[in-house]
Amino acid sequence: MKPYIELTDDELKAELHKLETQYKKFQAEGMHLDMSRGKPCQEQLDLSMAMMDVLTPSSDLTCDDGTDCRNYGQLTGIEEARELLGDMMENNPKDIIIYGNSSLNVMFDTISRAWTHGIMGNTPWCKLPEVKFLCPVPGYDRHFSITEYFGIKMIPVPMTQTGPDMDIVEKAVAEDSSIKGIWCVPKYSNPQGISYSDETVRRFARLKPAAPDFRIFWDNAYGVHHLYDDHQDYIIEILAECKRAGNPDLVYKFASTSKITFPGSGIAALATSPNNMVDFVSHLRVQTIGHDKVNQLRHVRFFKNIHGIVEHMRKHAEIIRPKFEIVEDALEKDLGELQVGTWTKPLGGYFIMFDSLPGCAKEIVAHAKKAGVIMTPAGSTWPYKNDVNDSNIRIAPTYPSAGELKKAMDVFTVCVRIASIHKILADRKA
Amino acid sequence: MKPYIELTDDELKAELHKLETQYKKFQAEGMHLDMSRGKPCQEQLDLSMAMMDVLTPSSDLTCDDGTDCRNYGQLTGIEEARELLGDMMENNPKDIIIYGNSSLNVMFDTISRAWTHGIMGNTPWCKLPEVKFLCPVPGYDRHFSITEYFGIKMIPVPMTQTGPDMDIVEKAVAEDSSIKGIWCVPKYSNPQGISYSDETVRRFARLKPAAPDFRIFWDNAYGVHHLYDDHQDYIIEILAECKRAGNPDLVYKFASTSKITFPGSGIAALATSPNNMVDFVSHLRVQTIGHDKVNQLRHVRFFKNIHGIVEHMRKHAEIIRPKFEIVEDALEKDLGELQVGTWTKPLGGYFIMFDSLPGCAKEIVAHAKKAGVIMTPAGSTWPYKNDVNDSNIRIAPTYPSAGELKKAMDVFTVCVRIASIHKILADRKA
Repeated sequence: MKPYIELTDDELKAELHKLETQYKKFQAEGMHLDMSRGKPCQEQLDLSMAMMDVLTPSSDLTCDDGTDCRNYGQLTGIEEARELLGDMMENNPKDIIIYGNSSLNVMFDTISRAWTHGIMGNTPWCKLPEVKFLCPVPGYDRHFSITEYFGIKMIPVPMTQTGPDMDIVEKAVAEDSSIKGIWCVPKYSNPQGISYSDETVRRFARLKPAAPDFRIFWDNAYGVHHLYDDHQDYIIEILAECKRAGNPDLVYKFASTSKITFPGSGIAALATSPNNMVDFVSHLRVQTIGHDKVNQLRHVRFFKNIHGIVEHMRKHAEIIRPKFEIVEDALEKDLGELQVGTWTKPLGGYFIMFDSLPGCAKEIVAHAKKAGVIMTPAGSTWPYKNDVNDSNIRIAPTYPSAGELKKAMDVFTVCVRIASIHKILADRKA
Repeated sequence: MKPYIELTDDELKAELHKLETQYKKFQAEGMHLDMSRGKPCQEQLDLSMAMMDVLTPSSDLTCDDGTDCRNYGQLTGIEEARELLGDMMENNPKDIIIYGNSSLNVMFDTISRAWTHGIMGNTPWCKLPEVKFLCPVPGYDRHFSITEYFGIKMIPVPMTQTGPDMDIVEKAVAEDSSIKGIWCVPKYSNPQGISYSDETVRRFARLKPAAPDFRIFWDNAYGVHHLYDDHQDYIIEILAECKRAGNPDLVYKFASTSKITFPGSGIAALATSPNNMVDFVSHLRVQTIGHDKVNQLRHVRFFKNIHGIVEHMRKHAEIIRPKFEIVEDALEKDLGELQVGTWTKPLGGYFIMFDSLPGCAKEIVAHAKKAGVIMTPAGSTWPYKNDVNDSNIRIAPTYPSAGELKKAMDVFTVCVRIASIHKILADRKA
């Protein structure tokens, strides 16, 4: 088929009529398919069920250093867990704190603490007239919710194929001391699945922020979440690069096992410089006596070591890779020649990003919803939910079954086509 | 033996000499005994090891309402856990949020949120010229650490045998709108083991605070932690009483299973009014996607119901009751007639409070430490670690073995006697 833009009005109207008939048929099926969140599917969760047997009533729950995991103590986590997560995050175990079940919660707490007490002796952010964050867009909605919650002004920075536009980032942080942070998902980014290039990471490590308490919030959520065995993204380890660049304290790096074992029952971790560690711990010891060490030990005994995690992630990939392929195939087959959108083909992570013609995303998502297919709300990938082009849609393929996903993509692509025709016809009238 | 105060200087000096010889013998033994924290002992932790078998690789981790505990969701906790903790806390499950592993962390977050965002639409505390908390003394050091951390001015309120001095509390909160909260451990209080009388709870529920955002921080940490089967304290349930008194939103009630199953790997809970719940949840949904539901389910399947918890606590009591008796017997035997201090005989909880002659606590604790017996630092039970009388010492009998405890109490009482003689002799000179 020819690109829609090359069709006449009559040809487009005929196509629209056909598509609307198809849409009504979908509606009549009364589907309810959810592609809104990056949730693992049941088969993925089943992969970790063996973890339920790792600790038994006769297990010795003592760490190598003698810590009884069942009792109070070990504010920064058990050494074995720091080592395992250290290997996963490519950081020195000494630079790691193991937290509870949610890295999002650690990020929230980090900003909350900067708000109430300031970073490393700097003025608490609540005492400043304005605090700003750079937000690469499209990005992760829950990051933006945290900064919005604290009244932090969010400044969108365009994402490129190699990461955030570093010309803009460098200039902004150097010139404006009210810019205190930037949200990054550096590997298999949410929602594009892009990984930052070596040059991008190098430039991040060499930022010269005007604010001494500027920090990079490096959410490496998908560090080991590859889709392919032989074709994987590698990124430069940021802490080491910052150290080499003479900027050791520039970054807070976050990770978790939420999409490795169980979302909500994994363990989260922070990696950062010794100076930042001292700062974190001085606050953390007021906040809690410690996190769940039994669950830390459970993870350590389940995986044994980083190779165990890698092998485990290979099984995840086998389950979800076909789902990514279903989405990509459907987009290619149904939209490939129509020039009504572009999309990413990530090598890992949890999302595919679809970019419609400008002004179509809200209509597409609303239309899909009326046919029972729930997408992440249009605009969610932008600060204040304000996608200036109204074009960005995040597709989360992991949770539905293959059959459901095919069905959902049929609906989705029909909705894309309908909205695109509406848009082209409207543009011609105007 | 006669009370020390009735001895002559020479008699006291002779006694001192004898005690110092004994002390040096203790020192020579090179002990290392820790009575500083309220930690369960290993036998207590062993009671919950069966919990490691409750979930197995073939278990169905689905809740009654269809929630897969392994995946994201259920911000306020699984229904089964709300019901179990509801029975434990004597509250409606609908009024309960199940959190992660630490109720202290929930208290910290609650104050942090009041600081950054305010309570139910009121001015964030960080925007106020001054925020104050009432602190019944002696009290729990970690409560005081949180309020001190936020720069909240702490006002000591004397504890009586029936709870905080309510005349003072009523007057203070009615007159001063900068008083935003009060720390309470209403049952088997830390460190006295006192339970609030009916009248005290009734008066709490009828407070008329000047500040609309004043809240009672009701840390019911020891609600089911009885030492005896047939002799237990009951207190009026505060949420219900507040509702009856027309003050439904006055209280945040906290609890956890930290000293029921595993400290650090239990589940924590908040109970509060529907209005407060809405306020909590609106913030919580930015902070996290949810807490560890697998661990919630593990607790529910382990205990089955409240009777399961009660039976479990009976086993705890069998282990720790003899330890409380060792402490009480030692105090009675070694100090009973000397009039050098008083102490509590709680029916539950984790602590015995010892009150020395004024000005002796620091010396006693320092002296015990030099003989290898670690007590909670003197002063810890007061805001800013400032025990104005220097008399209060918290004794935590649960962690050491019976043998160690006897030894430690021998050292402790000798240190009390030495410090008391020093004090009496110094007073006579002055």
